[in-house]
Amino acid sequence: MAQSRLEQEFDLFKDSYAQRAENLSVSEVRALFATVSRPEVVSLAGGMPDVSALDNELIRTAFESLMKNRSQFALQYGPGQGDAKLRGQILEIMALEGIQGTVENLMITTGSQHALELIADLFLDQGDVALVESPSYVGAVGIFRHKEAHIEHIYTDSDGISPEAVAEASDRMIADGKKVKLLYLVPNFANPSGVTLSEERRDKLIAVCKERGILIVEDNPYGLLYFDGAPPKALRARDADIVVYLGSFSKILSPGLRVGYVLAPPAIREKLILANESAILSPATFAQMLISEYLSICDWQKQISEYRSLYKTKRDAAIWALNEYLPGVETTKPAGGFFLWVSLPEGIDGKQMLPIAVEELVAYTPGTAFYGDGRGKEFIRVCFSHPTAENVKVGIQRLAKAIERSR
Amino acid sequence: MAQSRLEQEFDLFKDSYAQRAENLSVSEVRALFATVSRPEVVSLAGGMPDVSALDNELIRTAFESLMKNRSQFALQYGPGQGDAKLRGQILEIMALEGIQGTVENLMITTGSQHALELIADLFLDQGDVALVESPSYVGAVGIFRHKEAHIEHIYTDSDGISPEAVAEASDRMIADGKKVKLLYLVPNFANPSGVTLSEERRDKLIAVCKERGILIVEDNPYGLLYFDGAPPKALRARDADIVVYLGSFSKILSPGLRVGYVLAPPAIREKLILANESAILSPATFAQMLISEYLSICDWQKQISEYRSLYKTKRDAAIWALNEYLPGVETTKPAGGFFLWVSLPEGIDGKQMLPIAVEELVAYTPGTAFYGDGRGKEFIRVCFSHPTAENVKVGIQRLAKAIERSR
Repeated sequence: MAQSRLEQEFDLFKDSYAQRAENLSVSEVRALFATVSRPEVVSLAGGMPDVSALDNELIRTAFESLMKNRSQFALQYGPGQGDAKLRGQILEIMALEGIQGTVENLMITTGSQHALELIADLFLDQGDVALVESPSYVGAVGIFRHKEAHIEHIYTDSDGISPEAVAEASDRMIADGKKVKLLYLVPNFANPSGVTLSEERRDKLIAVCKERGILIVEDNPYGLLYFDGAPPKALRARDADIVVYLGSFSKILSPGLRVGYVLAPPAIREKLILANESAILSPATFAQMLISEYLSICDWQKQISEYRSLYKTKRDAAIWALNEYLPGVETTKPAGGFFLWVSLPEGIDGKQMLPIAVEELVAYTPGTAFYGDGRGKEFIRVCFSHPTAENVKVGIQRLAKAIERSR
Repeated sequence: MAQSRLEQEFDLFKDSYAQRAENLSVSEVRALFATVSRPEVVSLAGGMPDVSALDNELIRTAFESLMKNRSQFALQYGPGQGDAKLRGQILEIMALEGIQGTVENLMITTGSQHALELIADLFLDQGDVALVESPSYVGAVGIFRHKEAHIEHIYTDSDGISPEAVAEASDRMIADGKKVKLLYLVPNFANPSGVTLSEERRDKLIAVCKERGILIVEDNPYGLLYFDGAPPKALRARDADIVVYLGSFSKILSPGLRVGYVLAPPAIREKLILANESAILSPATFAQMLISEYLSICDWQKQISEYRSLYKTKRDAAIWALNEYLPGVETTKPAGGFFLWVSLPEGIDGKQMLPIAVEELVAYTPGTAFYGDGRGKEFIRVCFSHPTAENVKVGIQRLAKAIERSR
């Protein structure tokens, strides 16, 4: 921080930045990478999948097949929309959640984060409203802030975001002359809350948004990682006209490949392709084709099923440890995904406690990261996906000590 | 096109787009991909490297080493700034052009295109001025247009962009109350002109920009692909304070990996990292680490040297064929890189001639693609990098027929 301020003083171009640059802020995720890299710290922070559960032999097999069949294409530039073969395979993955898409309306992106960046850039002028859950994904809040949007957190409970609250907030802001452009949500095992939008609310939410011309951006990286039954059918499976759907290989295969995708209505899809080409020319052909070979050759549904068991074991370890070491503390109980949303005992601030927790050799993400308006002090996000189940327990035991020291 | 217009009519969100979305236009590069994919067409269009010249065994060796040594990291999220080991190796590559950088000031990007997107987003408000060469790289013109910038083409001749013209245009526009934010250029074997900025003009250009507080964005994908001697030292090697330097593995290794990099003064670099994290979380670790292994294990300088000979042979073929089949036609004679800039005989419009050329089974890029202001009708870009030397000759012979038919 001190260094950063010093550098600012020596910034020859300090008067040259665009107005939107003021909204670039240090990501809380980034600061956590440094902490996570210390091996003695149990990290319940960054939402990283457990890639050690992936069989490297499958990656080797996919690579060999790629080099044999398509190396000249994999090493070359490709189409801005992404590889047509992979897009066809993604239709099969999306069909598992009830979605009927087409290869034409699907575009490959550099992780689904970049899909969200392109969508936000396409729709949000300064002051336009983006509706989000309470709390919402830190990376979405960051993008919307960077676009100088007005971020409106909507009431959310254990059944997900409230359609009535969406209607109320939208009507109020529309009456105030604001443009309510889009609603962004993670309907299944949400980041960071872990909650899932109920069946009933899904249809209501679509009706509320359709009536008001609000685009729904459905971000679904965790939908296939359920522990009990599958979550309700995707919003996109219920309405193809007002839903833009984001998916990713980051949680079901590997985030290091940075391959996500977006399924959008034709007019929006057409603009997204132009925006993708402008930003990166074409998505990485090598990574796309490696995944395509993996999907062709390997039993990817079995791999997802193994991830389900693995993360369920870790979720159970987290819930067990919370009951054991922090019996009075409230938490969500997710039926899938990576995250618990924990309410701290009264008077404890999650951000202020973090240095104490790191002293106790555990890391987490403070709740304030998931709000655009300073709320969330009394919450923390606990991510159970990356450490072993045993270390999840150790981490939560250490968390209990940090809480004890902060009382 | 007819389909696209039809879709517009059915666009539920046609009134929802951000203002900047109006500036997204169909890239001429994109339309060419469809043409290029017909095997009977000799493409002198898209600036694709000849990846068939890359030894696949080297890629296999790098992959095996990666899976053995760093697979858990390669498949996981990484730091937003990019892999530290690769950044260290890039310093050695940049040193070949006289640049002394540091790992701290270097960031990895999704191709250098995304570096340019991030820089433009960081600096350009609506109406701000971006100075560019005449002609300029199509992908840069597209990005600046998307940011709603004023694109000012500066007089450029066989010695590159004119520092005097930069000074004159800047002073005129500053006097008009415009903010001249940056100068973007490809100093070596430019895309699309093939010209190289002279030694003398490099120092003058830095002085002119420094005096006026104009950031120089030096894009150098072709600098190491020289045919005779190395080009003059990079602008960044002459001044570290006002130059942001972009490099890429796309032309010296493979564009399908989408790995580029940017070296920037500390305050700018700090903001670029935040912007990169916001847009994509982290650059693809797998591709970065594959390249890192390649650089560690393989004789990459020998590979670059082989590319030099290969592209020199193709350049010679192109010049020979132009003399043979189009003796009256003027062209630049690049000392490196991928491109010739050809002046068409009087009265012929490069864009109008394209369908005739495609009938003759040859493709190129019309000169208008490289201007933001409609100029360039009387030029075409001929890219000799991708077809075999023999096919470069065949392509230019066909081009001669298309020109004959257009007279």
